[in-house]
Amino acid sequence: MSKIVEGSGLKFRYKETDFEGIMVSLSGNTYNIKLKNGYNFSIPAEALEIVEIFPPSASTVPGTDMPVPAGKHKVSIIGTGGTIASRVDYITGAVKPVLNPGFLRESVSNISEFDVDLNLMEPMLSENLNPDDWIRIARLTKTGLDKNRGTIILHGTDTMSYTASALSFMFQSLSGPVIFAGSQRSSDRPSSDAFLNLEGALEFSTVDLGEVTLAMHAGLSDDKVVLHRAVRSRKMHTTRRDAFRTIGGEPLGYYADRKVQLKGDYRRRAMETILMDRLESRISIIYFHPALGASDFEAMVEGKKAVVIMGTGMGHTASRLYESIKDTISNGTKVMMTSQCISGSVNLKVYSTGRELLSLGVIPLGGMLPEIALVKSMFVLANYPSEDFEKYITENMRGEIVGNEPVFQGAS
Amino acid sequence: MSKIVEGSGLKFRYKETDFEGIMVSLSGNTYNIKLKNGYNFSIPAEALEIVEIFPPSASTVPGTDMPVPAGKHKVSIIGTGGTIASRVDYITGAVKPVLNPGFLRESVSNISEFDVDLNLMEPMLSENLNPDDWIRIARLTKTGLDKNRGTIILHGTDTMSYTASALSFMFQSLSGPVIFAGSQRSSDRPSSDAFLNLEGALEFSTVDLGEVTLAMHAGLSDDKVVLHRAVRSRKMHTTRRDAFRTIGGEPLGYYADRKVQLKGDYRRRAMETILMDRLESRISIIYFHPALGASDFEAMVEGKKAVVIMGTGMGHTASRLYESIKDTISNGTKVMMTSQCISGSVNLKVYSTGRELLSLGVIPLGGMLPEIALVKSMFVLANYPSEDFEKYITENMRGEIVGNEPVFQGAS
Repeated sequence: MSKIVEGSGLKFRYKETDFEGIMVSLSGNTYNIKLKNGYNFSIPAEALEIVEIFPPSASTVPGTDMPVPAGKHKVSIIGTGGTIASRVDYITGAVKPVLNPGFLRESVSNISEFDVDLNLMEPMLSENLNPDDWIRIARLTKTGLDKNRGTIILHGTDTMSYTASALSFMFQSLSGPVIFAGSQRSSDRPSSDAFLNLEGALEFSTVDLGEVTLAMHAGLSDDKVVLHRAVRSRKMHTTRRDAFRTIGGEPLGYYADRKVQLKGDYRRRAMETILMDRLESRISIIYFHPALGASDFEAMVEGKKAVVIMGTGMGHTASRLYESIKDTISNGTKVMMTSQCISGSVNLKVYSTGRELLSLGVIPLGGMLPEIALVKSMFVLANYPSEDFEKYITENMRGEIVGNEPVFQGAS
Repeated sequence: MSKIVEGSGLKFRYKETDFEGIMVSLSGNTYNIKLKNGYNFSIPAEALEIVEIFPPSASTVPGTDMPVPAGKHKVSIIGTGGTIASRVDYITGAVKPVLNPGFLRESVSNISEFDVDLNLMEPMLSENLNPDDWIRIARLTKTGLDKNRGTIILHGTDTMSYTASALSFMFQSLSGPVIFAGSQRSSDRPSSDAFLNLEGALEFSTVDLGEVTLAMHAGLSDDKVVLHRAVRSRKMHTTRRDAFRTIGGEPLGYYADRKVQLKGDYRRRAMETILMDRLESRISIIYFHPALGASDFEAMVEGKKAVVIMGTGMGHTASRLYESIKDTISNGTKVMMTSQCISGSVNLKVYSTGRELLSLGVIPLGGMLPEIALVKSMFVLANYPSEDFEKYITENMRGEIVGNEPVFQGAS
């Protein structure tokens, strides 16, 4: 049998089923294989039960012009509420969540090209969603992906990064893209970003991507949507349509002029969508400030399994909290350190106060965003033994940890 | 007697002393007068006891080339600690606060041009400073300004914006600039920003400015210092030398090539430095997140006179907190709303959840930064009657409130 190289044709068995495909790349010990049916499959070398190997030929090397499966692209759209499906209430003047399925058909220019599987939940403003809602959304997402090529989740922007990150950690693998789409301006306003964001989300749903992402307006013009990796995304402005940013790096991709462009490293579609749907809710964020005392800290950690401190600078608190932090950790509560600076990494090895915190057992989270650290701790606490918490919380599971010098590229 | 117009020469009396100067501008009912001795004086029209008025002449209209008082410029430098006066501890490897008066003389290129009144406090890392320390620093600052033309405060960067904002609110008027200077890299490192920041702070101390500011490194090159208004400043990166940013507007000024440039509107030097040195410390920040429950909220507000919520988006929390928020406000605790987005304004009139919060008595703080709102509430609570809290906290006292569309200009 010939050697497997990039572009080799393969026949192989997996779970007693035969597959055919092309070896696209080898990452470490894992083969990434593009299947004939258009799906991607990642498999460790030792699990690859090869039936036959064919040498690569120009025609079998997969490229961007890989044939799309016949018929319309099947996409699942889950409505959770939020401004993207809202109208102004002309009696009170307030924007109310009023989900209207018709608005999809009426207003999104490319929707006729898709076979849409629409699933509307009871509409909620995203500030009211809690971790139980995240689990419901995750289960609907799995159902959607099991039947369709991608899933779009319509969601309010306020807590979109929290929900999307929760799903990112809960899905061990994804057979297609999961794309959160929202809008900053309601769909009955001329400046609404609802339609463009959804148009972009539909196009992103076709690509070879197995990650949880956000598709939101980019820049000041009306023609570009940016795709953010959920675990690096943050809402950085209250009202601007381009409020969402990828912190500490480049976005995953863009949509403009009806073309999708993806960049850098990203996970491809997996064979199967695997969901771990447990979350621990006894967690909190403690925002350190110069008047925060030990008794405040103690009140905030009461009954918690883990807390994320948003410390100052590289991850500091006043030394008056040390005794309480020590006791908290002794009692089994995990104490993590992030920074209220938003950009950059915490580092507890530079200053003497940082070294003290480290010696107390505080876990520094590098460049992980505070809100993402909170959500990740909910996933890790619920799914791994307590003694392995530090190992998993500091492991780069979904791209949530970036290098030491990330820069928030502000609105311009 | 002729009418007072811009450029009019004036002789007038104030507190039984005679003064001479030039009327520079009229703001509302207040005359801004440039005195012969180089100081500025702001006085309400009704308190202006005029002795004589001279018509304006080209030579009396003050300009940027106003003569500087003879001799070296007298400046007060207060050392509080922080990286700007630190060295690496080569035993532990950690950076320790080691104040060294000699380092000023050795390393700051323009210091020989100044008559420096040095006052070193017990060095502290800024994460350990508390509101009592702010009051001590404010009193030393007043002493410094009463004797010198400007005061520079060497301070750690971690909580610099908190301390500087506290002083900004406590000083009702300032006879000269108050300039916080720090560094992100310690002074024994080749890339240290300590010397340039202090050089810039010295130059800024000479200008006709009566505000509390921060002088910190700008951009990636080694030749520019930016002057931030304290109440709009925020540390936006853990390690970069240009970590500090003016949020929602332009900085007050720049220093480059040994030249100072100020921009836009700012307060001029006042006749006198007036300090109100009381602060209330029973306050806190509550960072809302999707797993925060009513009992968490109640634990965090226990015993507080005021709390600043960092809500989502335009200023929201989950409705499950409403009952607790209502009870908290009934019990006399002030509850304010800001946004965890950092940039942009809260607005509780757009969404139904916002209107609910408004009806409960939550006070929306527009575009005020959360940390600045916290510090301002400490000042307002300690100095005004409780029933006037909302009036004063929402009044634009020091430029802390900006318009509706501020944009954080990120690092580039």
